[in-house]
Amino acid sequence: MATTKYRAPSPYAKDRQKAHVTDFKHQRYLESIGFDPSMKKDEVLIQEDLKVINVALFGLGRAGSIHLANIMRNTRICLKYVVEEDHQRMKCVQAKWHLPDNVLLFPEESEKVFRDPSVHGIIIATPTFTHKDLIVQGLNAEKAVFCEKPIAEEYESVRHCYELAKKVDKPLLCAFNRRFDPSFSHLRDQVHSGVVGQVHMVKTVARDSPPAPVDYLKISGGILHDCAVHDVDLICWVLGEYPTHVFASGTAFIPEVAEINDQDTVAITMRFPSGAISMTDLSRNAVYGYDQRLEVFGPKGMMIAGNERPYNVTTSTEQGKSEPPLFYSFPSRYCDGYIKELDHFCDIIQGLDEISISGDNTLRISTIISALEVSNATGKMTEVKY
Amino acid sequence: MATTKYRAPSPYAKDRQKAHVTDFKHQRYLESIGFDPSMKKDEVLIQEDLKVINVALFGLGRAGSIHLANIMRNTRICLKYVVEEDHQRMKCVQAKWHLPDNVLLFPEESEKVFRDPSVHGIIIATPTFTHKDLIVQGLNAEKAVFCEKPIAEEYESVRHCYELAKKVDKPLLCAFNRRFDPSFSHLRDQVHSGVVGQVHMVKTVARDSPPAPVDYLKISGGILHDCAVHDVDLICWVLGEYPTHVFASGTAFIPEVAEINDQDTVAITMRFPSGAISMTDLSRNAVYGYDQRLEVFGPKGMMIAGNERPYNVTTSTEQGKSEPPLFYSFPSRYCDGYIKELDHFCDIIQGLDEISISGDNTLRISTIISALEVSNATGKMTEVKY
Amino acid sequence: MATTKYRAPSPYAKDRQKAHVTDFKHQRYLESIGFDPSMKKDEVLIQEDLKVINVALFGLGRAGSIHLANIMRNTRICLKYVVEEDHQRMKCVQAKWHLPDNVLLFPEESEKVFRDPSVHGIIIATPTFTHKDLIVQGLNAEKAVFCEKPIAEEYESVRHCYELAKKVDKPLLCAFNRRFDPSFSHLRDQVHSGVVGQVHMVKTVARDSPPAPVDYLKISGGILHDCAVHDVDLICWVLGEYPTHVFASGTAFIPEVAEINDQDTVAITMRFPSGAISMTDLSRNAVYGYDQRLEVFGPKGMMIAGNERPYNVTTSTEQGKSEPPLFYSFPSRYCDGYIKELDHFCDIIQGLDEISISGDNTLRISTIISALEVSNATGKMTEVKY
Amino acid sequence: MATTKYRAPSPYAKDRQKAHVTDFKHQRYLESIGFDPSMKKDEVLIQEDLKVINVALFGLGRAGSIHLANIMRNTRICLKYVVEEDHQRMKCVQAKWHLPDNVLLFPEESEKVFRDPSVHGIIIATPTFTHKDLIVQGLNAEKAVFCEKPIAEEYESVRHCYELAKKVDKPLLCAFNRRFDPSFSHLRDQVHSGVVGQVHMVKTVARDSPPAPVDYLKISGGILHDCAVHDVDLICWVLGEYPTHVFASGTAFIPEVAEINDQDTVAITMRFPSGAISMTDLSRNAVYGYDQRLEVFGPKGMMIAGNERPYNVTTSTEQGKSEPPLFYSFPSRYCDGYIKELDHFCDIIQGLDEISISGDNTLRISTIISALEVSNATGKMTEVKY
Repeated sequence: MATTKYRAPSPYAKDRQKAHVTDFKHQRYLESIGFDPSMKKDEVLIQEDLKVINVALFGLGRAGSIHLANIMRNTRICLKYVVEEDHQRMKCVQAKWHLPDNVLLFPEESEKVFRDPSVHGIIIATPTFTHKDLIVQGLNAEKAVFCEKPIAEEYESVRHCYELAKKVDKPLLCAFNRRFDPSFSHLRDQVHSGVVGQVHMVKTVARDSPPAPVDYLKISGGILHDCAVHDVDLICWVLGEYPTHVFASGTAFIPEVAEINDQDTVAITMRFPSGAISMTDLSRNAVYGYDQRLEVFGPKGMMIAGNERPYNVTTSTEQGKSEPPLFYSFPSRYCDGYIKELDHFCDIIQGLDEISISGDNTLRISTIISALEVSNATGKMTEVKY
Repeated sequence: MATTKYRAPSPYAKDRQKAHVTDFKHQRYLESIGFDPSMKKDEVLIQEDLKVINVALFGLGRAGSIHLANIMRNTRICLKYVVEEDHQRMKCVQAKWHLPDNVLLFPEESEKVFRDPSVHGIIIATPTFTHKDLIVQGLNAEKAVFCEKPIAEEYESVRHCYELAKKVDKPLLCAFNRRFDPSFSHLRDQVHSGVVGQVHMVKTVARDSPPAPVDYLKISGGILHDCAVHDVDLICWVLGEYPTHVFASGTAFIPEVAEINDQDTVAITMRFPSGAISMTDLSRNAVYGYDQRLEVFGPKGMMIAGNERPYNVTTSTEQGKSEPPLFYSFPSRYCDGYIKELDHFCDIIQGLDEISISGDNTLRISTIISALEVSNATGKMTEVKY
Repeated sequence: MATTKYRAPSPYAKDRQKAHVTDFKHQRYLESIGFDPSMKKDEVLIQEDLKVINVALFGLGRAGSIHLANIMRNTRICLKYVVEEDHQRMKCVQAKWHLPDNVLLFPEESEKVFRDPSVHGIIIATPTFTHKDLIVQGLNAEKAVFCEKPIAEEYESVRHCYELAKKVDKPLLCAFNRRFDPSFSHLRDQVHSGVVGQVHMVKTVARDSPPAPVDYLKISGGILHDCAVHDVDLICWVLGEYPTHVFASGTAFIPEVAEINDQDTVAITMRFPSGAISMTDLSRNAVYGYDQRLEVFGPKGMMIAGNERPYNVTTSTEQGKSEPPLFYSFPSRYCDGYIKELDHFCDIIQGLDEISISGDNTLRISTIISALEVSNATGKMTEVKY
Repeated sequence: MATTKYRAPSPYAKDRQKAHVTDFKHQRYLESIGFDPSMKKDEVLIQEDLKVINVALFGLGRAGSIHLANIMRNTRICLKYVVEEDHQRMKCVQAKWHLPDNVLLFPEESEKVFRDPSVHGIIIATPTFTHKDLIVQGLNAEKAVFCEKPIAEEYESVRHCYELAKKVDKPLLCAFNRRFDPSFSHLRDQVHSGVVGQVHMVKTVARDSPPAPVDYLKISGGILHDCAVHDVDLICWVLGEYPTHVFASGTAFIPEVAEINDQDTVAITMRFPSGAISMTDLSRNAVYGYDQRLEVFGPKGMMIAGNERPYNVTTSTEQGKSEPPLFYSFPSRYCDGYIKELDHFCDIIQGLDEISISGDNTLRISTIISALEVSNATGKMTEVKY
């Protein structure tokens, strides 16, 4: 009876154990109904009845289709318009979500969105070359703007958009979706509270799955602009500083990538004012799933946000132990992050939170990517001049 | 250059790699929009426009509140009514989901549901003592019925309900939610396809978190009826057979549980016609989170569906490696299963699938629980007489 | 520069970080040389020069062959004799370890061991039917005795051996090797220090690999005597108490096992005075490796000693993630435990530690096994009468 | 009875399942006794009686003390001499291992070793500045030489040693111990057999624990020569090629390291003829244990040799799940590798294997380190000129 001396008081003798702060799905469940069913009747608080946010969605491609479903499932948002040139796709989402005809617009009807004063915000998920015009029109129409990265093709256009946003006093949110991933934001919170001490090293892995179509690669701006931008943003966000010097070196193993003078495999190193160093490992093609990792190291320890799998099932046979692959791609891997990202846009519009991704940040990230391109071409560590 | 001989063909030289069958979230994403954005325009299929299913939800308690949000987010369902006696809760969900007033009914207004011919199905998540009446009214009104377990308090009432369902030719689905958990159903599919060979042993762990309120325990029917029923159903579902003999032995460590002559810790063993044996380990209170595991063993190997965590973040310090707790409780742990369960109800109503939980199954599980109670009281392995 | 405020003092400003108490291999390394190379010269302590322990080993079978190598590698022990009937095996170990001829004895020469006053202890790893005689001769010759389980075939013989040991005041150590496994003993220490609170549930899994030869099964005494004895001992050792009631139920899936009226798959439940319950899951044949697990649960948490693998290498491909199997069998899985077990025998002989496995314990475990046999035959939970 | 159709044939109907090739501890067990106890008598093979190898060990510091214990436990080796200046340490190992006095030599007595024709090989684990002289004396005396890295302080001296080895036709083995780690060598074998396809990326992490004493750092040659050398060798060994261009960038966070113009944190990138890229992340101080990882990525998948822990025990409480730290340092982390390394030296001496680490390799690694130093100083990717 070695442990009877540890007899515990009844669990009912103390306050009911609450959900741990990391159980974001429990939190989401409570938010989805507006009360806690485990509380007594007279403890239930009716949540303030905030006004519904009317939005228009531009684009039903890879990102836009994710936003469409999240918009429809979000209690705070009403989808006033979806703008898309592909009639088939429109028909599909209309059938799925029972959308009235007047919600569906072709691009040439976009003007309707900007003229509708009931629209609070627009979500831009169209091809990059259309971003600038939509942003400008949206801001001029006094809509809050959520835009997939990049904000625009040219640095000067990006700057112009942010200046306009400032002028009209409307938010322009560049959708760095990885920041909203629950595991990454938990890791960053812990690092900022000192869990590993002063950061010495930050590492990311970002290996894409499946490989993007060749047609997309041609207009993607190259692996640094298309992929590294997420890692660079993530690292700066974790560190709370921007690099002074950067280095990149890559290879094209895939013939189609070589043909367009791009690379499919890149190693990046960055140096920061605090002395911190970062390392990033990019690939266009991981057959075992969407490989996304973040590691932070300091004198008190290390934190790792590792890969995520659909579920925790293992099979053990004579050959060993196995488990199913990682999530296949970003829609499933970052599904929770996309939900949180949209909520952040709502919070900004409703004045519940400040915009967490500033124009200054977006512009600096863009500058860093350009410096990485120089380094990649010259084989020298390159100073970043903001 | 040890591995250059393994130079791979371009990934573009073969068919695009598809999502692995286990990535149910990718599947859910595709279903949420009705097309695959990675397909070329002319390959996109517009999904058939099935009629929307109108449902009424009875009860906004622990289970009902989960169904409410899932109903609202499901493209196939329209919530016609929600019936609940607690005015506060009604107000909360109305504010959250912008429900029109005529959707909200008090229990005394239930008749409206049954008289409304547009209602295809009802979802019952009220206290057990009300189940039978609601089921009978629902079936007599020719509604499909989804009911939280148990179907009724008395075995004879359960049998009566199923007979009525057969008579009126409407489905009566007993909500054994764990069967719909993606990890458990993947494991079962693999086991049924022979991965471990003939099953020798099935094991479950089910430790609750947080402990249910004492008031609930008093009306719960005891740990065997309230908790073991899930494990017994899961085991029989995995094995495809019902036990011939069962054994249970438990302890009450928590004073409040002892006072009501219940137990908080129980070990169960069952024997099956094939020779298979099962073991189940139940507790009312796991402080480290909602502990739900399933293990199957046979001559070719073993499969384990282990616990699930919100995300995969680890912290390493001088003291060792740590990670956040398991999911707190069933709303977050089984959130994906609840979604799938509701879709199964839709599939049944739309004739896309047969009901997967038969009345015969539900009645047998009930018989097994009764035999476990006899065993627990007598200390003898008890034969189950169906 | 979010974390520069956490700038750490130099690691050299504080005492050198020591090895964590759980790194038993670092401890073993230090013990193997007798000093800590990281200490300054004048801090090095020369360890007291304890007398070498002379032992005789009986048997070079599955267990004896493990002990042979561990004896040869242990600085504290000198192998005076090895007694074995198989000439080939003798030749093998002689060649391997360069043993002089006079170390090798045939069983008929055993008398030499007992007459040699320089022999401090004997290690018995011969077939069970020879144990009693060797123990009696060893104790009468005033040798410390280490004996593989079981001490003898009959309960009365076991009791007699322990009484003799007491009379001649020499230790008789029954080799329950699993207690010496570093992971199990760490778990037990933590549980005894209250980490999980009062224990509610203890669970073991013991699935053998590879299946023992049929010839061995015939003389093994049955799965309860041969296998369950380890689990029962482990559970009682963790709990610090013995069960009042026990239950066992098993199946013979393997024809050769059925033919000898034994079982290959058994479920065991035991109840303890403190209210604790234990569950054990036994199999004669796990193709995926030697499956040995221990789990303890209480109101403050849970500890699990999981399976062990040769190393931590994973492979991720399109099919998922895989890793090599568990250790194949007891010689590799418990290799560290066997080393520690032998050291415990040395500690007892040198008066550095008390014997940790008492005669009373061994006799009680035997009584429990007999009660399990009754339960298995009758289908009733059986009271254990010590 | 869903799975009875998968009834398996009796395990006794087929050949006994063998140990998986990865269970190196089972293999070591069999080798330690020279026969397989599970085989029938007449199947036992007596292993050929190879002559014992006589060795002399120079140095009882951090590496030498590891070799001392491994020599004593190896059946193939006889320790003829140990040469050490520290009398205390000598006394310790003498007491531990009962060494006769004539085995112990002071450095000034080294000549005895070289003049003793019975000595087959010498193991050099003394400070670097003594290596060259000992190697030259050893080779000239026709001894096989095993030497801790680096072979000598100057590149020309290293070359001279290898030329001498060639001339006298004796092996000179540079002890890159990590190659002998079972997990790393398993990973390399799998990679060379094409498991991941042509390698695109190799990554290593090497974070030391505990931090080396400042006195040692001063004579260590800097973090690149002292630490990176292992990673560079490991990467080239996995890839089977040497880099054309290298890049290094580091920081000194620890004041004592800054004072001696060294760095404690370094990021390394290398480019290889095949197009492969490598990344290495070094630190002098990981408080959570000795962090040693290897990852290889290619078009067919990824292999990771992750960190190793003393055992697999987890504790789950309200705060989450935790486990003990990694191994503390190299003696425990690489204990199995050191054993294998010594066996490789024996295999070379006995003509059973070719030397696996060539002089050419060692010289090239040295050239790479020098190029890394240039890169680190200039901020440019540096071409390696062999």
